[in-house]
This record gives sequence, structure tokens and C-alpha cells, in this order.
Amino acid sequence: APPAKPARLGLCAACHGETGQARIPGAPNLAGQKPDYLREALRQYRDGRRDIPVMRAAVGPLSDAELDQLAEYFSAQTPSKGAQ
Amino acid sequence: APPAKPARLGLCAACHGETGQARIPGAPNLAGQKPDYLREALRQYRDGRRDIPVMRAAVGPLSDAELDQLAEYFSAQTPSKGAQ
Repeated sequence: APPAKPARLGLCAACHGETGQARIPGAPNLAGQKPDYLREALRQYRDGRRDIPVMRAAVGPLSDAELDQLAEYFSAQTPSKGAQ
Repeated sequence: APPAKPARLGLCAACHGETGQARIPGAPNLAGQKPDYLREALRQYRDGRRDIPVMRAAVGPLSDAELDQLAEYFSAQTPSKGAQ
């Protein structure tokens, strides 16, 4: 079965959409992205190596397990070619 | 018509695949990604804000026009859900 919706999904969905289709300019699509890439990117947003304030605010308090759950969830979503 | 293959595509394809399906662990899928996100990410790899040596080596010498062409090309590719 696909991964359950993470508790914190609402926070991400505002910009990335509930199924990983970006909703705002500048935000990436996440659907179908490689999970290892997402796990690493999330850690870099959390520790500031990727210095993006809105992402640091969003994932700053999250545990590794929560980051990994979000990575698994979005990588399991089906990307749609449509919304460029 | 979809964008023509950029001259430098071979350099990217080694890790990201010719149609934006990542070939190596840690590399992201690029197919169907938002073009504005890709343009900005490429600039951050070029100027070191994203401090990833292999990417700095790959795009360091590229012009803005070349970065934008690569962003357009990969965003126009169709993502495949298959290869996670």
C-alpha cells in the first residue's frame, strides 16, 4: 500500500501540493522524486546548508524519522506532466 | 515542438539520464520539474550556494542562457513513476 499521509503533510502541501505538484512559483514538484535525494535535501534545508528560510521554518523542528516519512510519501506520488 | 537537445546534455545525462530519470544514487529526477525551480537551482550550483562539487564542475562554466536551456529541456521531459 502507498505510504500513509504524514501528519505534517499540511505544512508541505501549501507550497508543494498534497500530491507533490508545486502550487507556488519557485517551489519544486516532489511527486516521484528519488527518496534518497529528498531525504538529503530535507536535511540540508533543516541544517541550513540549503539556506532557504521558509524551508528552515517548515522542517527545522522535524526529526529524521519525520523527514524520511515525508521523503517516502512524496516519492511515492505519481508525477503529472501537465502542470509545468 | 519539445525543446531541442542542449549541446551540453551529455554532461548531465551521465547522472540525470538523457530524459531526466536519475541514474545514480543521490541524483534527483529532473523530468517534468518546474523550470523556474531548475533555473534557480542551477544558478545556486554554479555560484556555490548549493555547495556540491560535482555540480559546480558541471555547470561552473555555463552561461545563463545555457542553464535556462537545460532547465527548459528537462522540464519538458515526461517523468516516469517507475524508476524510484
